[in-house]
Amino acid sequence: MNKFNKTKNTVYLDHASSANFASSNPSAIHALGVQEKNKLENVRKKVADILHAHSDEVVFTSGATESNNLAILGLVSDFNKPHIVTTNIEHASVLELCKHLEETKRATVTYVEVGNDGIVDPKKIKKAIKENTVLVSVMYANNEIGTIQPIQEIAKEIRHYNKRNRKMKFLEWSSDFFRGPEKNLHFPVSFHTDATQAVNYLSINVAKLGVDLMSFNGAKIYGPKGVGVLYVKKNTPIKKIMFGGDQEHGLRPGTENVSGITELAFALEHTEKIKEREVARLSKLREYFINKLSNISHAHEINGDLVNRLPNNINITFPNIPSDLLVIELSAHGIMSSAKSACKSGDGKASHVIQAINKNIKDTDGSLRFSLGRDTAKHDIDYTITVLKNVLQKLEKWYN
Amino acid sequence: MNKFNKTKNTVYLDHASSANFASSNPSAIHALGVQEKNKLENVRKKVADILHAHSDEVVFTSGATESNNLAILGLVSDFNKPHIVTTNIEHASVLELCKHLEETKRATVTYVEVGNDGIVDPKKIKKAIKENTVLVSVMYANNEIGTIQPIQEIAKEIRHYNKRNRKMKFLEWSSDFFRGPEKNLHFPVSFHTDATQAVNYLSINVAKLGVDLMSFNGAKIYGPKGVGVLYVKKNTPIKKIMFGGDQEHGLRPGTENVSGITELAFALEHTEKIKEREVARLSKLREYFINKLSNISHAHEINGDLVNRLPNNINITFPNIPSDLLVIELSAHGIMSSAKSACKSGDGKASHVIQAINKNIKDTDGSLRFSLGRDTAKHDIDYTITVLKNVLQKLEKWYN
Repeated sequence: MNKFNKTKNTVYLDHASSANFASSNPSAIHALGVQEKNKLENVRKKVADILHAHSDEVVFTSGATESNNLAILGLVSDFNKPHIVTTNIEHASVLELCKHLEETKRATVTYVEVGNDGIVDPKKIKKAIKENTVLVSVMYANNEIGTIQPIQEIAKEIRHYNKRNRKMKFLEWSSDFFRGPEKNLHFPVSFHTDATQAVNYLSINVAKLGVDLMSFNGAKIYGPKGVGVLYVKKNTPIKKIMFGGDQEHGLRPGTENVSGITELAFALEHTEKIKEREVARLSKLREYFINKLSNISHAHEINGDLVNRLPNNINITFPNIPSDLLVIELSAHGIMSSAKSACKSGDGKASHVIQAINKNIKDTDGSLRFSLGRDTAKHDIDYTITVLKNVLQKLEKWYN
Repeated sequence: MNKFNKTKNTVYLDHASSANFASSNPSAIHALGVQEKNKLENVRKKVADILHAHSDEVVFTSGATESNNLAILGLVSDFNKPHIVTTNIEHASVLELCKHLEETKRATVTYVEVGNDGIVDPKKIKKAIKENTVLVSVMYANNEIGTIQPIQEIAKEIRHYNKRNRKMKFLEWSSDFFRGPEKNLHFPVSFHTDATQAVNYLSINVAKLGVDLMSFNGAKIYGPKGVGVLYVKKNTPIKKIMFGGDQEHGLRPGTENVSGITELAFALEHTEKIKEREVARLSKLREYFINKLSNISHAHEINGDLVNRLPNNINITFPNIPSDLLVIELSAHGIMSSAKSACKSGDGKASHVIQAINKNIKDTDGSLRFSLGRDTAKHDIDYTITVLKNVLQKLEKWYN
């Protein structure tokens, strides 16, 4: 507690700035505003420390979707005929944005194909870089099949390319000096990774990873929804995509959601604390799950590399059985799973990720994702396997 | 409580979608996801009912800044050489965006000047509308001086203009049929209002107001930060400005912050319930404040119309006394006020709003905003007046 909590000696007459005195506007210059600003900056420092970054490299957003949009849209906006390199298994917030940029002729995009294992070859990324490339965006771990991309190796390839091909002058990106068609050549290719699915299980040391931009959110780390982070390495040539105040180092306007940001920081801190233990525990549970799966007589195939993979992800294709139906049948038995990989918003088509790793997949082949977490125990797996067997037995009569 | 709270019979294996089973992803098709979706849609209906709108006209965003950006950027993006009409006292999220659109040659903008009373003439708005105008954006009530704009009258002028000048065909806005230079003529001019400061005290019945787009947020109605609303009237030709999922009727991607949205809805409901009472109570308190002010010997002037004004706003100019200093001195005595109207981020210039209503204002003239609220009582005003007198006596020795 401190002296500026509202007491009979405090008169709060700044309701137009923030109605609740308990969460004043951090831009206010009165004592409660300054206090809120300090709280925000302490939390920012905490997040920065975990990322091995500086406080002025941490931008808080409304979620991973906004972080990805800010990273990509905010980077290409100021370049001349910018080119983006990405993969064919990115999250919708990257792929849809890239498609929009192509449609509106604001950028060209190369979608590097991943292998059958769901992993992209860093050499292929490097090969795709052109003279006008300004950004490479490769997700850290895939949301559907959990495959982990070789971020460090990709970063190395980009560094090599930049060293030989870009006249890097370590200029402030905002300098007007290098506008016009020559501009792209004067900046290194930036590297963005969407780390949303990775944060729980993989290192998020940005210095080691070698990334310039990294997105994640609170919802996937047992924290709040509606809060995200974009790490922006110093001198990365990015501009804001929304307009208003100068909050978040001028990159994200709007009064900061300090309580949500604080919750995110605590969630991140806890995630780091238990990361190693959870990776070990969930890896074992996943192996147990996969072993039990082999007893299932119905044809099935596990999607994506089994080694370079998040410890909590199992993604299985069951030929000819609609995955929406699988999810709903399992749900009726209290088991919550996902069919994201099969049908996106009921368009009846196979997921772009599953298609990317299996050219023979049919739209009628279902894929089921089980993603384990902190509350998952061995008996949950046993129950799931039992129910899954029964459900498959029931459904295969209709669909095979 | 319901049967889908996690019990020993529930196995949650969708952590990649949302880590917390207690706040599942509303896009998930399993029982917990469906439950969360229902919660969201019930809350949306509640907000829609309060606005006298339909559920599919309510879009949840991350705040008023995003709502304003979505309304304006989302509307102009698909038109040919769009023209915007706004005023010279809008919030930064409208003005900065308009300036950005001008700089990047994506739109032209007319800034209609308000009168010395801080109120815009609807006839002037109508006069400013041109053949290529696609949007009029006028704030409902000003954040600095609290003046209320004649939204209903402006809406009427726009309706008249549209009737005579636009070949409205009630086409779906997404129709590709009317692209190209002729397109602007086939759509009515849309009308957006930023109602952020108005929600606590004025009617937000969009049908009566006659607006097509209306922004507000949770923070100003004693609700959550990081949550906003954009009302979008059916057939308004607006497109999303961020890319990812199809959430929020395809206008705002990203997993919905259901708990924050729920908090906002409850805050809005309560605001409606106590609106009339608070308007009466605060109007009296403000009159009391203004009467007491007349006893202050130091020169001062109240900014903005005193009748068409929010009941909680008092904005005073004290010639030659820096307002930052006033805020800090008052804060040292426990009184939280705002100097927004004087210096914006320390650039030492008078506020654009105060300049707009007083051409003779000097950069050295300070303006102080007191905004009253639910926790404000008479003794707060008495204390504030006493302290303000003392502070002015102290400061005028140095600055006069």
